[in-house]
Amino acid sequence: MKLVRNDAGRLVPDEVNGQKQIPYMGVNKHKPNGNKYKPPIRTCIDYPPDGNKVVENLKSALKKSGLKDGMTISTHHHLRNGDVLTNMLFDTIKSMGIKNIRWFPSASFPVHSHLIKYLEDGTIHHIEGSMNGPLGKFTTEGKMKGVGVLRSHGGRYQSVQDGEVHIDIAVIAAPTADPFGNATGDRGPSACGLIGFALVDSEYADKVIIVTDNLIPFPCVPWQIQGNNVDFVVKIDSLGDPSKIVSGTTQVTKSPDRLLIAEYVARFIDEAGIMKDGFSLQAGAGGTNLAFLLYLKEKMKRKGVKARFMRGGSTKYLVETLEEGLTDYILDGQTFDLEGVRSMRENVNHVNTSPFTSYNFHGKGNFASIVDVAVLGATEVDVNFNANVVTHSDGYLLHGIGGWQNCLYSKCTILAIPTFRDRIPVIMDEVTTLCAPGELVDVIITERGIAINPLRKDLIKAVKGSSLPIKTIHELKDEVYEICGGAPQKPKLNKEKVIAIIKWVDGTVIDSVFQVVK
Amino acid sequence: MKLVRNDAGRLVPDEVNGQKQIPYMGVNKHKPNGNKYKPPIRTCIDYPPDGNKVVENLKSALKKSGLKDGMTISTHHHLRNGDVLTNMLFDTIKSMGIKNIRWFPSASFPVHSHLIKYLEDGTIHHIEGSMNGPLGKFTTEGKMKGVGVLRSHGGRYQSVQDGEVHIDIAVIAAPTADPFGNATGDRGPSACGLIGFALVDSEYADKVIIVTDNLIPFPCVPWQIQGNNVDFVVKIDSLGDPSKIVSGTTQVTKSPDRLLIAEYVARFIDEAGIMKDGFSLQAGAGGTNLAFLLYLKEKMKRKGVKARFMRGGSTKYLVETLEEGLTDYILDGQTFDLEGVRSMRENVNHVNTSPFTSYNFHGKGNFASIVDVAVLGATEVDVNFNANVVTHSDGYLLHGIGGWQNCLYSKCTILAIPTFRDRIPVIMDEVTTLCAPGELVDVIITERGIAINPLRKDLIKAVKGSSLPIKTIHELKDEVYEICGGAPQKPKLNKEKVIAIIKWVDGTVIDSVFQVVK
Repeated sequence: MKLVRNDAGRLVPDEVNGQKQIPYMGVNKHKPNGNKYKPPIRTCIDYPPDGNKVVENLKSALKKSGLKDGMTISTHHHLRNGDVLTNMLFDTIKSMGIKNIRWFPSASFPVHSHLIKYLEDGTIHHIEGSMNGPLGKFTTEGKMKGVGVLRSHGGRYQSVQDGEVHIDIAVIAAPTADPFGNATGDRGPSACGLIGFALVDSEYADKVIIVTDNLIPFPCVPWQIQGNNVDFVVKIDSLGDPSKIVSGTTQVTKSPDRLLIAEYVARFIDEAGIMKDGFSLQAGAGGTNLAFLLYLKEKMKRKGVKARFMRGGSTKYLVETLEEGLTDYILDGQTFDLEGVRSMRENVNHVNTSPFTSYNFHGKGNFASIVDVAVLGATEVDVNFNANVVTHSDGYLLHGIGGWQNCLYSKCTILAIPTFRDRIPVIMDEVTTLCAPGELVDVIITERGIAINPLRKDLIKAVKGSSLPIKTIHELKDEVYEICGGAPQKPKLNKEKVIAIIKWVDGTVIDSVFQVVK
Repeated sequence: MKLVRNDAGRLVPDEVNGQKQIPYMGVNKHKPNGNKYKPPIRTCIDYPPDGNKVVENLKSALKKSGLKDGMTISTHHHLRNGDVLTNMLFDTIKSMGIKNIRWFPSASFPVHSHLIKYLEDGTIHHIEGSMNGPLGKFTTEGKMKGVGVLRSHGGRYQSVQDGEVHIDIAVIAAPTADPFGNATGDRGPSACGLIGFALVDSEYADKVIIVTDNLIPFPCVPWQIQGNNVDFVVKIDSLGDPSKIVSGTTQVTKSPDRLLIAEYVARFIDEAGIMKDGFSLQAGAGGTNLAFLLYLKEKMKRKGVKARFMRGGSTKYLVETLEEGLTDYILDGQTFDLEGVRSMRENVNHVNTSPFTSYNFHGKGNFASIVDVAVLGATEVDVNFNANVVTHSDGYLLHGIGGWQNCLYSKCTILAIPTFRDRIPVIMDEVTTLCAPGELVDVIITERGIAINPLRKDLIKAVKGSSLPIKTIHELKDEVYEICGGAPQKPKLNKEKVIAIIKWVDGTVIDSVFQVVK
């Protein structure tokens, strides 16, 4: 493994876990060649004619799938912190004496700290997916055998489609399924909403196992996952803890600073002329995001403006927007609360999307760049508008990328962030880890003012003369350095040891995360 | 090209249009090896970020798609006999001076007799798809340059998925679409219901052109075809004649003989014990099929039986079954009348399916074999229960295969047919063209009695002692030969010239169609 400097000036390895890597070449610079991954041709002869693919348990399904040392196993995060399946899966793999699995989750949650012992004993070789909380700490301290690979939701689709990641066995948690393997997440005792994160796995994995706690007679409708891609179906008692899969309520921030940020965001969208009939927006589920949506709704009502579509993760606030007639559609990627799940199940204008439709950069276009405005968070932003979403300034892996990198392609990307957290500046000279090239970040909105990327002369012009507190990013940085007593302290890093890489949406490597030395 | 005898004893060419062929090896005997076709990896860099893929006209889209001599162009039959697009398409191709196109429709209709001049002048080299009416006559008389290839709907999916047919440019008629290429058939002035026949083309063709007469702002929901697979969108004035795309009414047969057949079918399904709670059936749109459904509905009501699902082509009669609570779901492959289109648009329990989910034999199972009973027609059946659906006894190509071969995999396949048509026996010693191996045909129901395949001892036992007029197939044949004065006259064939081949669902060649000599 050799470190090379990529187009963003970051040191990245030319090879990771035995696989050659392409260093990041700039926004829209790397064009893929070659062809998509081609799965083996199957035949109905090898599958039960009556469509009943149920096998007795997970172990049996793994055996029939030919589980071996060194394989890649994928799971998905739609059960969030209520997931018991993934832990049960690796308990089973461990009991079968299997070693060196590459775990390829769409994301991980604190509940998966259960797996640290399997990282320690060699059951799991390394993780390609987000490593947060205890898993992040374990990895960042250099204890994982292989190197972590972090991808956006779109990047995960791209990597499998392009054959960069070959999944041997996909294990898909299905809140409702039929014996043929048709599966949905929008109903059942462990309902989670959408299970589209597993779409690419169902399309390309060698073997696909559906695990459900709600097996119903064929057909399971809607089939978010198609049984025609499924090998085995397993029934278990419970997929997890419903209260941790979806929350009954989602909280709007009560912090005066965050509310101020939210208000600025809504005002910016209005005053920059983005909020007009037929516009579109993407909003996540953080407390600030929920609050800005409430402010924006009031403005929309006052001006009689209706959106064409809003993109979620959906929450009851987004659902209300749909039900109050303020948008024609919700295009939903995942569902964060019970109201979101209900609406997805009942309202045909609450439309399921997937990482393929929304985020795959190696398709014939995707939805992300069609969106008029996306409001996102960040852990750090620097004076060149570069942004970080995976580590904090202490160097520890803390978040996954999610759809964040993909959403940067919206027509106007706003990062809504506080200027500091726990007295550590969020706006700084240079981000610890680069996840977003500055040229894709258009506006930074903080409680101390709004900085517009100088590249976006159109936006600068649009809000000129408005009452919005427009500042330069340098002014914001100076202010926060003044308050916090200067730049964040740099973590002590072992620059010889890359513990994870950050992929850009096109599969190239945009940055490395190094071992933190205590 | 050498003729070899396949497992069914039929002479088939070992090579067609320069492509090597595998002779039919028996039911469930041919296992594919190798991998699916792998389309080139695309990138968003090459597509408009605002999602607007609209180009000025069809010619421009074809040019941008790199149209060249000898390419394969696909179209679809969901506009049925109201289709003006396909004719317009080949007028355009002709005007561009392009030659030797392989036309790969999902089916053809009499309206496409317009294309005979292009078969004559070399614009079109040959057709892979059904050749009916005037196209069938042209082809059967040996006038087409290449050899026709007839496939079932499932076989069409399989052939593209497996890389047997490479589509250069797919031209998809979309009754409603958005500028990104998301498209649906369930609404718009040319609404036709479902456009799932174009699914495989959208997934695997090099270039995909959506042509619509109803362009709406993004997003077009539902997206039966996903814009992420689309290259260009073209707006034209009208896709066709709505009255010929879907009929306002579908007619139940008035023929006493056909009504008797229909009654026998319903009685058989009931008395054989198939009609019970949670059962499933597939019924087509012919007059006899509609009538049997009406009889069956009455029986279901009387006995309080509810089906789990019914498969269409849907009609108002199938829709009524759903709306009267006699089935949980309609799983619909195409839509034959206006009521079907309305129901598909409005009723979430009227579920879209595709040749992938329902019929692809090279998947991990498909829906066809899950169905309890399928009621189909046929042009000829012989004493070995072999059946024909593409030619009549005069040797002329008359019908496509449609989903017919795929449906033979149902748990009980019934052919509901008259014993003769126009004084020509339909039941005979040996079918003119073999489309269905006898072992998959379970029951023949005619106005003169019912013959059960001796292989189905279970069915024979089930109706033993019933009042149904059970006979042997030989008895039926003898009766009809008596009436019609013997076997049908054999057509005069040029056995040196194969004008078309019939594929089995696994891609092997089950029979040849030879030139008819006048």
